[in-house]
Amino acid sequence: MDDFVFHNPTKIIFGRGKEAQVGAEASAIAKKVLLHYGGGSVKRTGLFDRVASSLKEADVSFVELGGVAPNPRLGLVHEGIALCRKEHVGLVLSIGGGSAIDSGKAIAMGVPYSGEVWDFFEGNAEPKEALPVGTVLTIPAAGSEASTASVIMNENGMRKRGFNSELLYPRFSILDPELAFTLPKVQVANGTADIMSHLMERYFTNSRPVELTDRLIEATLRTVISVAPRVMRKSDDYNAWAELMWSGTIAHNNLLNTGRIGDWGSHDLEHELSAIYDIAHGAGLAVVFPAWMKYVYKHDVARFAQIASRVWGVDNAFMDPEQTALAGIERLEVFWQSLGLSTRLSGLGIGSDRIGEMADKLSAQGTSQVGNFVKIGRAEAERIYALAL
Amino acid sequence: MDDFVFHNPTKIIFGRGKEAQVGAEASAIAKKVLLHYGGGSVKRTGLFDRVASSLKEADVSFVELGGVAPNPRLGLVHEGIALCRKEHVGLVLSIGGGSAIDSGKAIAMGVPYSGEVWDFFEGNAEPKEALPVGTVLTIPAAGSEASTASVIMNENGMRKRGFNSELLYPRFSILDPELAFTLPKVQVANGTADIMSHLMERYFTNSRPVELTDRLIEATLRTVISVAPRVMRKSDDYNAWAELMWSGTIAHNNLLNTGRIGDWGSHDLEHELSAIYDIAHGAGLAVVFPAWMKYVYKHDVARFAQIASRVWGVDNAFMDPEQTALAGIERLEVFWQSLGLSTRLSGLGIGSDRIGEMADKLSAQGTSQVGNFVKIGRAEAERIYALAL
Repeated sequence: MDDFVFHNPTKIIFGRGKEAQVGAEASAIAKKVLLHYGGGSVKRTGLFDRVASSLKEADVSFVELGGVAPNPRLGLVHEGIALCRKEHVGLVLSIGGGSAIDSGKAIAMGVPYSGEVWDFFEGNAEPKEALPVGTVLTIPAAGSEASTASVIMNENGMRKRGFNSELLYPRFSILDPELAFTLPKVQVANGTADIMSHLMERYFTNSRPVELTDRLIEATLRTVISVAPRVMRKSDDYNAWAELMWSGTIAHNNLLNTGRIGDWGSHDLEHELSAIYDIAHGAGLAVVFPAWMKYVYKHDVARFAQIASRVWGVDNAFMDPEQTALAGIERLEVFWQSLGLSTRLSGLGIGSDRIGEMADKLSAQGTSQVGNFVKIGRAEAERIYALAL
Repeated sequence: MDDFVFHNPTKIIFGRGKEAQVGAEASAIAKKVLLHYGGGSVKRTGLFDRVASSLKEADVSFVELGGVAPNPRLGLVHEGIALCRKEHVGLVLSIGGGSAIDSGKAIAMGVPYSGEVWDFFEGNAEPKEALPVGTVLTIPAAGSEASTASVIMNENGMRKRGFNSELLYPRFSILDPELAFTLPKVQVANGTADIMSHLMERYFTNSRPVELTDRLIEATLRTVISVAPRVMRKSDDYNAWAELMWSGTIAHNNLLNTGRIGDWGSHDLEHELSAIYDIAHGAGLAVVFPAWMKYVYKHDVARFAQIASRVWGVDNAFMDPEQTALAGIERLEVFWQSLGLSTRLSGLGIGSDRIGEMADKLSAQGTSQVGNFVKIGRAEAERIYALAL
């Protein structure tokens, strides 16, 4: 087990109608907040009004900035920074899924920083402080509600980059599974792929032994595999949503990578895909992850056999673990397909014509290689994209 | 899933030699600390000196109070409170296992409280504030290093009581598995029983559905069952110790009871036992828990069959789940016996003569009943103690 520091101070408030507590939580931190959100759904469903009333009751004033896109843009982050400075905002309150939260986190880092906030995402600067962030989660997927991560798209060159800092743990996150009832099925499927990818990115590690965290990851994967189809069948199944929502947070709150280093190559490969084609992150992961697995599984057949057996219930072929490993990858593809996800680029209408460009952009990142379990450079990326066709 | 709030802000610093960081952590909180510990082993092993040097390097001064007993006494807590007030201590730093940490937490609550600290343990008062607490853990067992709990023994009537408050989460805890290498085997076995009991107390719940947390508890139990015998065989097996130590923290940091209410009847039954006979908590649990299980399993045979199958690998008898359930209880007893633990009172040299007295004291607690999965009053307690003979 690798040495580690684990310190996740996010307060999780979980249950039906808990968004009514947002005023009380916010007022303990600031007198004025930025309400940050995406499209019109938070207004249509009445959630925005409920949050606004709760803030008013707690004597917290607010300014608002909507319009966060599914791959959140740097331009809007700049707008948010300017607005927070002008209005002396003390707390960024994101309402929505990963995009609204990631955008809010970028704003929170940018406000006290005199330079360009994109510097952080390019690895050219480290934030020393940030405004506090709170969230009201509506989409179980990105896990940003209790994570150190923010992923932003720079429209200049369509570069999508992630950044991590302990400053970005939200101070509080409100998780009401009922808020997810109105989510379109395609978003449920994408979110499920994202959650499972967060778990698997942590699973594929060269650190060892990592017995406890292996088993905790397997436990969370099995839960997601059990509840996601129930949510797809019955959109108001509170119990299944509750399991999925809490799994999504646990998948990415850094508990499950204590003592191990994850991979994240698939996430980087996907970022290039969604940066060019502007597809949803989860949809891209459903294509990239199986291709990545097929490319790297020989690096550690035992680990792929373990996940196949423990998570997918594949009967282990002790005399031929490679067979077990491959059966596990196949089960994953079949499961994602059963949720309506495509596991091939062709299913997204994407051909081979820009594979070279994506591989170029990936290898133009600071380190020229991504991933830890197996290092992925330009040549490897090109082969993985080709396997995904 | 029940509604919940989860907010565990304890910073965990995990790995070889991490006690060297204690000065840096302490100096961010206070200029003067109380070093609180048990017997002479922390001095014999040189740990005390290493902690003291780290504090000195960070310009943190300290006073010390040793002598914490395995069932920590209220008398020493009073001494600690007086010492902290006199010396204007700003941080209680416990070095040791659950007893030193629980005693430190009680001191931390008592310092700013003008009344008698025992009031908290009797449920007659609620603390409004507490000194911050830090820990250097040497025994994986109680989980107090990242929990809200403190358990103290009042010598007046030998009453042992637990208290929980979010104020008691340590600010930081340093977990170096190497510090456990010198632990006597009997303490390893007792600690293992304590960790497993924390997991099972959470497992036996009437809340439902609780799929994710069921699976996370099962994952942690399986890890403990795998690594504890390795630690018993080879006391310097760092990897196995690391898994056991982190499992012990996860077992009791409140993550695994999110969305569910645990039982804790067995812990209460054990507290009466160790209060009278002054045996170790883990040793008492190894006797009480199987008896409690045999008494209550009919309340939810499916749940007992589930833990038997998923944790103990019992082949589920679908046509007769009671058979599966009972086989699981038997496996638990056999496992504990394999660690050298007695699972019967007779093995501890305890007969039936004071069973009535223990049942009386248990039912004299505020509520007259303990437990949640099944309520245990005086009559039930007497029967469970009898089953443990």
